[in-house]
Amino acid sequence: MTAARIDRLRGQLPEWKADALVLTNPANRMYATGFSSYLGMPWSADCAIIGPDSVDLLVAAIHAGWARGESVVATDVVSHKGAYASSLAAFLEERGFRSVAVEADSLPYPEGNKLQDAFSGQIEFVSGLRDVLRTVKDESELALLREAAYITDAVFEEIAAGTLIGRTEADLARSISARLIENGDGLAFDVIVASGPNSARPHHRPSARTIQEREPIMIDMGARIGGYCGDLTRTLWVGDYDERFVAMYRAVLAAQEATKAVMTDGTPVREVGRAADQSLQDSGYGEYILHSVGHGVGLDIHEAPSIRSELDAVLESSSVVTVEPGVYMPDWGGIRIEDVVVVGSETCETITGASKLMTLQG
Amino acid sequence: MTAARIDRLRGQLPEWKADALVLTNPANRMYATGFSSYLGMPWSADCAIIGPDSVDLLVAAIHAGWARGESVVATDVVSHKGAYASSLAAFLEERGFRSVAVEADSLPYPEGNKLQDAFSGQIEFVSGLRDVLRTVKDESELALLREAAYITDAVFEEIAAGTLIGRTEADLARSISARLIENGDGLAFDVIVASGPNSARPHHRPSARTIQEREPIMIDMGARIGGYCGDLTRTLWVGDYDERFVAMYRAVLAAQEATKAVMTDGTPVREVGRAADQSLQDSGYGEYILHSVGHGVGLDIHEAPSIRSELDAVLESSSVVTVEPGVYMPDWGGIRIEDVVVVGSETCETITGASKLMTLQG
Repeated sequence: MTAARIDRLRGQLPEWKADALVLTNPANRMYATGFSSYLGMPWSADCAIIGPDSVDLLVAAIHAGWARGESVVATDVVSHKGAYASSLAAFLEERGFRSVAVEADSLPYPEGNKLQDAFSGQIEFVSGLRDVLRTVKDESELALLREAAYITDAVFEEIAAGTLIGRTEADLARSISARLIENGDGLAFDVIVASGPNSARPHHRPSARTIQEREPIMIDMGARIGGYCGDLTRTLWVGDYDERFVAMYRAVLAAQEATKAVMTDGTPVREVGRAADQSLQDSGYGEYILHSVGHGVGLDIHEAPSIRSELDAVLESSSVVTVEPGVYMPDWGGIRIEDVVVVGSETCETITGASKLMTLQG
Repeated sequence: MTAARIDRLRGQLPEWKADALVLTNPANRMYATGFSSYLGMPWSADCAIIGPDSVDLLVAAIHAGWARGESVVATDVVSHKGAYASSLAAFLEERGFRSVAVEADSLPYPEGNKLQDAFSGQIEFVSGLRDVLRTVKDESELALLREAAYITDAVFEEIAAGTLIGRTEADLARSISARLIENGDGLAFDVIVASGPNSARPHHRPSARTIQEREPIMIDMGARIGGYCGDLTRTLWVGDYDERFVAMYRAVLAAQEATKAVMTDGTPVREVGRAADQSLQDSGYGEYILHSVGHGVGLDIHEAPSIRSELDAVLESSSVVTVEPGVYMPDWGGIRIEDVVVVGSETCETITGASKLMTLQG
């Protein structure tokens, strides 16, 4: 599997007029070699160098054993000698590379400059590589994404059926996080529990606020398994229903269905976003939209394809994408319902299965 | 507290000949404003702009409510309009800043270049700001660091007294992570459980390997509370002791004591590192050293002061530093014992209290 991935990357070398590619993004490096340090972080000093006949891992000395143990393709693991940029430049020259492509997005600004100063050859800085590399998932990735979704669903249903009222947001978030970790390998991102007016914030750090009856309880959570991320949002309500909540809930659910209906191979992402926004506008909630309807998910919790109106991309089969329309009413609260789907040729398949009942109590 | 922090940053503006400072590092931004998005990550698009009479938060639209709720000083919260660099440049110009200092370490290489293109004024790129800003901890920070240490200690002792043999590394790491999260706010870093030969790797991703009797069991773990990190390593042994393990264990413990003995205000970090290395060399383990003896810890798990022989820094009172000598014997395994200390004028105070018995079984 990784051999095919390496071949695909090698195939791009001529396009960049490069003898070698330096992968600086942790998720891309893991995707190509299996070595997982700093997964989930935007950058690290551990990089992979892919030449026409070689794959090397240049890593922090304390990671050398780990890299050797985890890598499934590396022909050589080398420890950094000295600072990152100068060590990388020296390594590239030692290997005889004269023209290299370097991932720029996962390189801090000073390191990019130092690398240019230190390396005597040509550098082509490449942006957005992960978007072309990892947008379409293979079978092994789809299996892990399904597993991450399944674990996330199961933990959500267990938690949603338990005590919610009277607990603080932070306390509930702790329980969710602990259960996600006990059933997977880690968290895809910091769990969000936002109650009442706090749910008017799409992102929020769980606070000491006590969750009460008759208010939105928004939970956004994801397990990580084998490196791959789950991502699920549900908004719950405990106690007698409120007309406003029920109407908004139905509108968000309808927007999610309307969005999924257009999510097939070849659909421009702009159209996907438009379907979501149009549906919410039609039901009168257009002014309460605060974010785009979805993003790709894989080794990173946010990756291609982004569902954004300013992008020209089209959906491709076997892309894995969140569908998460939300409406947020300042001071009152918000509702977001998020699933993960696999894009297919005629339809998309929802791989999150957690209940969408407004309450799972009693 | 944060008002004093803002004043301290403002005091540096003349040095950079700048009208304003742009904080791009998430931990620095939280330290100055209280807004905690992306804490633990090396960068984010949410930044703080500190002018002579203003503090602004320029954030992703979906973070605006969160930023308003959490910030304790911000005079204004503004949402990015468009892409990061162009939006930041437009904001700075709108505010009338003509010369700005921008944290460079937490800026991706392409964004640094775009910012220079988009901003018509002068930019001074500043590196290492967090090292001068957050090296010396105040009382509120010390209280949280003590709490993080306490939670970490308690979870370690609970786990170490429970079943270890027959569980996989990954399974044990899951239990530790869950208990850390249940008692704090999150993880300071991914928990390491490395058994037998895997413990010869200072960093390691917990695997499906089953932990056995009569081999090193290395556990490196840390709670996070109020944003602040715990960091604790212990190496355990279950079953009849092995002479090699006991001799190595005593040597590492002695190196830790020898290192702590010199960790007072004014000691060059180079001397601290030398004390650790010398002690391990004297006991015959010099060739098995793979990493420096410590690092500062605070809002980031790795921050100043770094205890590295190539640095000119000296220790300062109220710095918080790990002391973690380790020896790693390829194929056999390794031993690391890590405490966290607060540097004082005459001595250092160890704030981790977990048992250093080689076993807590039975």
